[in-house]
Amino acid sequence: MTAAMDKQQIATRYQTIQDNICRGLEALDGSAVFAEELWERDGGGGGRTRIIQGGDAIERGGVNFSAVHGILPEPVKKAFNVDDEQFFATGVSIVIHPNNPLVPIIHMNIRYFELNDEVRWFGGGIDLTPHYVQMEDASYFHQSLKTVCDRYSPTFYPDFKAHADRYFYIRHRQETRGIGGIFYDRLTPEKTGVSWTDIFEFSCALGDAFVPIYSELVNRNRHKAYTEQQKQWQYLRRGRYVEFNLVYDAGTKFGLETNGRIESILMSLPPQAQWVYDFKPVPGSAEAFTLSMLKQGVDWTAH
Amino acid sequence: MTAAMDKQQIATRYQTIQDNICRGLEALDGSAVFAEELWERDGGGGGRTRIIQGGDAIERGGVNFSAVHGILPEPVKKAFNVDDEQFFATGVSIVIHPNNPLVPIIHMNIRYFELNDEVRWFGGGIDLTPHYVQMEDASYFHQSLKTVCDRYSPTFYPDFKAHADRYFYIRHRQETRGIGGIFYDRLTPEKTGVSWTDIFEFSCALGDAFVPIYSELVNRNRHKAYTEQQKQWQYLRRGRYVEFNLVYDAGTKFGLETNGRIESILMSLPPQAQWVYDFKPVPGSAEAFTLSMLKQGVDWTAH
Repeated sequence: MTAAMDKQQIATRYQTIQDNICRGLEALDGSAVFAEELWERDGGGGGRTRIIQGGDAIERGGVNFSAVHGILPEPVKKAFNVDDEQFFATGVSIVIHPNNPLVPIIHMNIRYFELNDEVRWFGGGIDLTPHYVQMEDASYFHQSLKTVCDRYSPTFYPDFKAHADRYFYIRHRQETRGIGGIFYDRLTPEKTGVSWTDIFEFSCALGDAFVPIYSELVNRNRHKAYTEQQKQWQYLRRGRYVEFNLVYDAGTKFGLETNGRIESILMSLPPQAQWVYDFKPVPGSAEAFTLSMLKQGVDWTAH
Repeated sequence: MTAAMDKQQIATRYQTIQDNICRGLEALDGSAVFAEELWERDGGGGGRTRIIQGGDAIERGGVNFSAVHGILPEPVKKAFNVDDEQFFATGVSIVIHPNNPLVPIIHMNIRYFELNDEVRWFGGGIDLTPHYVQMEDASYFHQSLKTVCDRYSPTFYPDFKAHADRYFYIRHRQETRGIGGIFYDRLTPEKTGVSWTDIFEFSCALGDAFVPIYSELVNRNRHKAYTEQQKQWQYLRRGRYVEFNLVYDAGTKFGLETNGRIESILMSLPPQAQWVYDFKPVPGSAEAFTLSMLKQGVDWTAH
């Protein structure tokens, strides 16, 4: 890695991305603004948790930045199977829960991790959880991610799309959390043939693409009328989101096990959720269609 | 174990306990009745899932019976650290979510487990999750459990109470799920000095005590007026219930990992829940008092 791209500069750039995304989301929403909470980590470093709530389009969202360092906690050493102890991690993490059930939930994360200045990698991704799958939106979303990916490597989109399909899967329901997107982890030049600089630039390009992509999806749907029954379905889908995040999500588990800042970690949970015993959507309904599309291996760009 | 208490007879008695509890809860509610779903397990056995919803006192509750057998699933063998393969398990499992926030959530489970006709044990417990801790109710609850326990062994209540404190703990929140109760696992005569017959009778006595205890707690509180703000607090406490069940509960994890019947397992989740970012109760409020009491090691019988 060149001196022009040390960990501090990565953190600074990610911080700027957080700033830009918050500004962009406030402009998108047009009503609510972010409240910021600064926090410090006992072992070293800290973060800026930013929450937006009660907006015109956004019911609640979080855009968190953190840059932490110190001695790797014991459970993490086990999980990573390493003895190294000095770590540095920085990233931006986003979850947005919209008001309108026809607007999708979105999640983004970009992160950089270092062990003892030797081992290092980038990870992250963007994925979409529509309460109602709309093919043209799904296609737009995946096509937009593919466009960003293709600027860096032809293998990025297909590899990271497949990874997202595997990752965002609620095994006990045998359904995907949403329509996926891209997910990548432990990205290095050795693995990809892409330079450190370009991997870093790729992660920043994702950060820069977030607001334009989500704005398009929000603006297409935010003023559509919806029924009380659609709102109930939204709460039910949010329940599935809770199930995924608490049972399977690695970032959440990592945070809970390492005594991370709980309110920052669990800001991904929805404002409300519901569980209906043995709910079965009406055959042929939009809800049934959505369920039928929550599966791995769909080529969304083909639609 | 005597021939008069083989696994089939245990299952039959537990089935009767399920019947009695359902009848008792219908009488308590006075409005809603249980709907039953019979299911069979691919590997052997099955169950009777019974759900009551939309009642006068009960918003949603499940009283499930199952008796399953067959080859132990791989993840369970690992968890139990055994090579034995033929298992038998039967039990009754209950979670009740009431309408009124001043009425507590209750959970009960009694179960019997066998491996290859050699290893066997009983497990279970009853615990209470008040949205609002009320000392006289908490004291009544624990005193009632102690009375049942004391009929079988003087060590049961203190041991099982301490076990419940350890078990029903939301580590990432550093708070207990509720006010605990009793929890026991892998109970055998070797461990307790109590005969198989009496351990079995103890589990049945818990099953028989469930309706009288919960009826008392429901009837004390069901007609109390409550505010919208108290209802919101109930949803927030239900969110904690979701966190415990999805992140820590062994029975839920076991069920999800072994492809159990998902709707029967997740009937423990509340009808709705909510998450409020960084919620802090007003100092001196009933909510703040409740939070202050959600800790391990409280001697509830002393109050």
